[in-house]
Amino acid sequence: MKFKIKKLSTQTRARTGKLETARGVIETPIFMPVGTLGTVKSLSPEEVAGCGAQIILGNTYHLYLRPGCEVIDRFGGLHRFMHWDGPILTDSGGFQVFSLARLSKISEEGYTFQSHIDGSRHILTPEKSIEVQLCLDSDISMCLDQCIQYPASRDEVAAALELTTRWAQRCFEFWEENRRPQNNLFGIVQGGMYPDLRERSAAQLAELDFPGYAIGGLSVGEPIDLMRELADFTLPLLPDEKPKYIMGVGTPEDLVELVALGADMFDCVMPTRNARTGQLFTGSGNLNIANARFREDTAPIEDGCTCYTCQHYSRAYLRHLYKARELLAYRLNTIHNVHYYLNLMADIRAAIKADEFIKFRKEFYRKRKPST
Amino acid sequence: MKFKIKKLSTQTRARTGKLETARGVIETPIFMPVGTLGTVKSLSPEEVAGCGAQIILGNTYHLYLRPGCEVIDRFGGLHRFMHWDGPILTDSGGFQVFSLARLSKISEEGYTFQSHIDGSRHILTPEKSIEVQLCLDSDISMCLDQCIQYPASRDEVAAALELTTRWAQRCFEFWEENRRPQNNLFGIVQGGMYPDLRERSAAQLAELDFPGYAIGGLSVGEPIDLMRELADFTLPLLPDEKPKYIMGVGTPEDLVELVALGADMFDCVMPTRNARTGQLFTGSGNLNIANARFREDTAPIEDGCTCYTCQHYSRAYLRHLYKARELLAYRLNTIHNVHYYLNLMADIRAAIKADEFIKFRKEFYRKRKPST
Repeated sequence: MKFKIKKLSTQTRARTGKLETARGVIETPIFMPVGTLGTVKSLSPEEVAGCGAQIILGNTYHLYLRPGCEVIDRFGGLHRFMHWDGPILTDSGGFQVFSLARLSKISEEGYTFQSHIDGSRHILTPEKSIEVQLCLDSDISMCLDQCIQYPASRDEVAAALELTTRWAQRCFEFWEENRRPQNNLFGIVQGGMYPDLRERSAAQLAELDFPGYAIGGLSVGEPIDLMRELADFTLPLLPDEKPKYIMGVGTPEDLVELVALGADMFDCVMPTRNARTGQLFTGSGNLNIANARFREDTAPIEDGCTCYTCQHYSRAYLRHLYKARELLAYRLNTIHNVHYYLNLMADIRAAIKADEFIKFRKEFYRKRKPST
Repeated sequence: MKFKIKKLSTQTRARTGKLETARGVIETPIFMPVGTLGTVKSLSPEEVAGCGAQIILGNTYHLYLRPGCEVIDRFGGLHRFMHWDGPILTDSGGFQVFSLARLSKISEEGYTFQSHIDGSRHILTPEKSIEVQLCLDSDISMCLDQCIQYPASRDEVAAALELTTRWAQRCFEFWEENRRPQNNLFGIVQGGMYPDLRERSAAQLAELDFPGYAIGGLSVGEPIDLMRELADFTLPLLPDEKPKYIMGVGTPEDLVELVALGADMFDCVMPTRNARTGQLFTGSGNLNIANARFREDTAPIEDGCTCYTCQHYSRAYLRHLYKARELLAYRLNTIHNVHYYLNLMADIRAAIKADEFIKFRKEFYRKRKPST
């Protein structure tokens, strides 16, 4: 994997780059749609690509439990199994064990937990996490980290980051021994809301010289200002020549702000999950398609939007489908939202290339929060 | 609308034809996928067309209640509302009032009923049914008929068919006064399981010289042999120069048998509904995708099938999606089933054209019920 910075904003820390993987080139900054169970919910891979996706995310915890590695092994990895031949980034499974699994316990060895589906018992060690991700033939694997709740005491956070560093070492070693050339591995900086612990974590991980670095433990319930403050502090601690990924973030406003602080990669369930509850993103703000005011509205979700949904369907039709709980509703809404996110990233990249990021951001906020 | 018989089987009563509507030519015999609420459940219109659909069916009862005519009027009809520019046949609403609505009552005037959604009160007269269907700009509207349960006494059936004839007269008159050139109307022959009543109904309706004729009141719970017996008796009673449509039927075997008896058009929820419960049709029989034996099966649903699903996805993946209740499961299953039905109809037409229908039917049964 090669990462090349193409353009540095002179106005902010924003930057564009090219991340070259064996399965395709990713232009950064980029948003990665979430495909939890081997499908970006409700979309075909062709639709995901049509929305502008260059890389998608898969969830190791979910895929490990269902359908399981022995199934995906038959296909030589997740790509052929799900009919997506572009790059895939997989998380480590740690966050889902922390947030979804039953009776999860942590030790030096790893996590023990019971499946949220059938209660079956499992152990997720750093080595096991990488083994599963290599079975998925993930283009970018993530190290297993210890996730903790917010707020957490300084001692808890410090202990978690130290364990995360030891696990990163184990992940790195297992990966080096077992990887194929196309498999890359990112380290995850922890440290909660304590800047000095973020600094310690970043310094420890930098020694392993990962192909890329992520910031974990943000967007876990803390106030938005604190999240951005920590990102502002932590992003410059990561090696500038490596891609910088902020995990699980965020709103369109978050993406614009975090790009300005130097982030290159994002993932979030927001565009897909919100689509399924009828919340649609537009440049002039979000709308709830179930609203009665759209009942006879022949306009598309957003004038000028080039997504498949806006090209062919009205708000009235989308409201009708949504109210009737028709399956097509979720797909058409998701197409629009994913397209919105990826189009926003394309606009961000164009603004950075033109070195007009500040102007772009001002315009973005002016439109997103109309005074009328 | 023009209907031309192209080829008559010398071996059976099967025939091919071309039904020319303002929105496209339909090759018969044809199956019409059901798009109850302005969407063939889970599919985009492009996918419906990609499966080989030449005409789809909409449900007047459902569309009248949701989104309502005043909404669809804004789009000048159902076609633009739902982004389908091919022909649409709509039913009269009578069957759904009979089977779904609450407290429905019948009188000479029409049906009174309460919505199954919100309990609101409505009256569905023959004129109202046609008015709604013309608002949908339906290419083929159906006359309002009186549906009755099976079994029913001879007196009940006779009374229902006489009312159906009087309603057909009213539908015809309202349609003639209010139609646009593209709007056609089919009469529906009733008469339950009594051949002489079927004969009476067909004779009465023939006087109105409808552009096409349907057989209603079949597949309402009667034994399959009785259904086919009644179809066998009734189909020759309909004018041969008009398209003959058997409503709400059926299995692949039903389609093959009824084509042999002279039927030209069919509709049924079976391919779409069964897809959503994991029941998939193939030339060698049906399969349940949830079955554990497909867990690691890298083969497509059906070898040689040219549908999008079989071109790109394995049984293992489809089983995984279905078990995980992923939205994409319903779509991929539906694409296959609708393609199967429409491909079967294409094969049937080819067999008739080659005057090899008997050979085709033998081969069809041999493959569908393998001895192993």
